[in-house]
Amino acid sequence: MQIFGDSISGNCLKVKWTADLLAIPYEWVEIDIMAGGSRTPDFVAMNPAGQVPAIRLPDGRALAQSNAIMLYLAEGSALIPADRFDRAKMLEWLFWEQYSHEPAVAVARFQVRYLGKGAANLDPKLVEKSKAALDRLQAGIGEGPFILGDALSLADIALVAYTRMAGDGGFDLALYPGLQRWIARVEDALHLSPYA
Amino acid sequence: MQIFGDSISGNCLKVKWTADLLAIPYEWVEIDIMAGGSRTPDFVAMNPAGQVPAIRLPDGRALAQSNAIMLYLAEGSALIPADRFDRAKMLEWLFWEQYSHEPAVAVARFQVRYLGKGAANLDPKLVEKSKAALDRLQAGIGEGPFILGDALSLADIALVAYTRMAGDGGFDLALYPGLQRWIARVEDALHLSPYA
Repeated sequence: MQIFGDSISGNCLKVKWTADLLAIPYEWVEIDIMAGGSRTPDFVAMNPAGQVPAIRLPDGRALAQSNAIMLYLAEGSALIPADRFDRAKMLEWLFWEQYSHEPAVAVARFQVRYLGKGAANLDPKLVEKSKAALDRLQAGIGEGPFILGDALSLADIALVAYTRMAGDGGFDLALYPGLQRWIARVEDALHLSPYA
Repeated sequence: MQIFGDSISGNCLKVKWTADLLAIPYEWVEIDIMAGGSRTPDFVAMNPAGQVPAIRLPDGRALAQSNAIMLYLAEGSALIPADRFDRAKMLEWLFWEQYSHEPAVAVARFQVRYLGKGAANLDPKLVEKSKAALDRLQAGIGEGPFILGDALSLADIALVAYTRMAGDGGFDLALYPGLQRWIARVEDALHLSPYA
């Protein structure tokens, strides 16, 4: 299997971390988004949405959307709850991540860190939406230790990706001690060094 | 089971159609978004994200996010492919819907039909993003008859919701004959009258 991803993208790292944790072998193909790597004819032929990450199976079939790829890779593993309601709750968090968290927290980070916009110049609505997402996530984790309770799941992997990078967008994670403790737990479970 | 939804919302109708098709009994609880019905203390206690749709099970547990609810309701049914790769492909479409289609096509519709903005005054980026989503969907369906091929799946239900309403946002579906034919097939499968 090949994973096409940009190492600066949380969405791509999610897929890498899931494969690493499950010891699924893969070849990492670095795609430079900023240089248009996800818009080349070859790439768009594989993923018409022109987005990373994508994976290509040995038989040539391709799959896109970070959370869909994680669900595919993790099928049958402990990263997906066996209980039907818990599994649905995990999916609720995955869809919320892509609708309400990533379009705020990841976009703020991208504008500040990669487009050179000052955090003070971010659209106030984007800042407000990001803070609301961080608040909501922290409340959802509660005492944890993980989002769904005792066990690490894909919800943690998906949501930690950009939450740990929130400082890049000018958000002070010290204001979210519950998130800081959870980030450390998830990084530990994924064998990751703290983000810097 | 109770379904909390606003009848004008495609996201809410998806859940209703899925329950109807699978003959799952429910009580529909109408929530008027425009009147703040999804922001009341009672509602937010049930769904802290303050969004419809949500469902409440007889034991009191609640679940949110339209596509997560559909996946929960349809588990074990023919609306979710049995093949692992096909199932992942369906999930790819569901995540793409919430990330790239709904935030464009549904937002344009809301602004024009419910906020009274002229279609000519929509943000050009929103229009461009909506047209790109409609193009991508039409190409993805190809000859169909359904998104994944021969069988209706949750991908069709999720994506037809706002695609059939695209005219509300000023998009002329006559320019997308492949979409028009697919919309008619999905409406027929769901026993729906054409949208007006």
